[in-house]
Amino acid sequence: MTLFLYDLAGSDERRRFSPYCWRTRFALAHKELAVETIPWRFTEKEAIAPSGQTKVPVLVDDGEWIADSWTIAVHLERKYTDRPSLFAGAQGLSKIYSSLADGLVASIFPFVALDVLSVVHDRDVEYFRKSREEWVGKPLEDLVADHSSGIQGFRANLAPLRAAVANQPFFGGDRPLYADYALFGPFQWARCASRLTLLDESDTLRAWFERMLDLFGGLGRHVPAC
Amino acid sequence: MTLFLYDLAGSDERRRFSPYCWRTRFALAHKELAVETIPWRFTEKEAIAPSGQTKVPVLVDDGEWIADSWTIAVHLERKYTDRPSLFAGAQGLSKIYSSLADGLVASIFPFVALDVLSVVHDRDVEYFRKSREEWVGKPLEDLVADHSSGIQGFRANLAPLRAAVANQPFFGGDRPLYADYALFGPFQWARCASRLTLLDESDTLRAWFERMLDLFGGLGRHVPAC
Repeated sequence: MTLFLYDLAGSDERRRFSPYCWRTRFALAHKELAVETIPWRFTEKEAIAPSGQTKVPVLVDDGEWIADSWTIAVHLERKYTDRPSLFAGAQGLSKIYSSLADGLVASIFPFVALDVLSVVHDRDVEYFRKSREEWVGKPLEDLVADHSSGIQGFRANLAPLRAAVANQPFFGGDRPLYADYALFGPFQWARCASRLTLLDESDTLRAWFERMLDLFGGLGRHVPAC
Repeated sequence: MTLFLYDLAGSDERRRFSPYCWRTRFALAHKELAVETIPWRFTEKEAIAPSGQTKVPVLVDDGEWIADSWTIAVHLERKYTDRPSLFAGAQGLSKIYSSLADGLVASIFPFVALDVLSVVHDRDVEYFRKSREEWVGKPLEDLVADHSSGIQGFRANLAPLRAAVANQPFFGGDRPLYADYALFGPFQWARCASRLTLLDESDTLRAWFERMLDLFGGLGRHVPAC
């Protein structure tokens, strides 16, 4: 049986840059489940209409449509109980990592907004600009200009994440768990859509991110970086 | 066998206001371990010298001295395996909650610094002011004045925590875990040392905090609030 994943792609079909879809890609790999990804663009709302959602990731599992990365993770955990646990049995403790990752997307966006705009598919450009400018309340150019000097502050705010992996290789502990996949998403999004150096070479989190890129035979490393 | 906990106290001995000691108090209660708390003041370094540390919490467990709230939690989990798990078996996933709680202490401090100063024991006042002013690099009065209008920003930054308990009663899920006790500490510290309303009445986190105060027969509620 094959699972299908609607996966956000850029003008280059190989550029898969959604921070949310990456959570699901890694969750599927962790569960040792084969998946066929279907490149999807922001404006292809009809293709995923059966999910009841207008955003990806959307998973189709034996005819069942499931949207939202957290809902998908819970679905995989409940259905594929004989596979490695995404939560080490502690689903409740894992929820915060999704929330923290959502917060990272919001705090990274002002630095990469124009870079992301340049990798989205031609037919998505207008949608992307309009929806994001409504969200942030200003032109993307102004947003990026306002934040151009803020990368040190962004890095300082990562202190709690940094401390958590100072003495263990993964947020999950000795091995990666969904917690790691959730937090990987925003950094991989930035890697795939921007040349900005979010994390300093000497940053503990950078070492963690490199470990993440190595997982599952280099699943994260094998997509084009900017 | 009785465990002993050196527990930070104010000029009123009943006022136990350390955000770190509260983690340990709740961890001990979770493990169903009786403890005798020993009121301790900042300047009583000699009393806890056998721990190798100059700060509390310090636990004495059958003659063994253990310092640092996270180290104590790991010790309790490893030694008392027949008691309820503090980590639901997922110690790695729990580490970030301590890091987030440390961050909360730092971000709450500018609002409550003078209030805390007013509850510490007379003989601790000079030590507290000097050590904290070295830490923040300015007089406590200036620190508080600089942040007087910042409570809305502080609350906005709690969004990831708020989202994590939007659909589950505790950070641990259906039941509280060490994750909850770690995050409880900073809010309880503020409650015991300040009249500032950190969390709005309608805040999801306020409801969570009230649930925390009810745990273990009202262990957190039975200390004097400001």
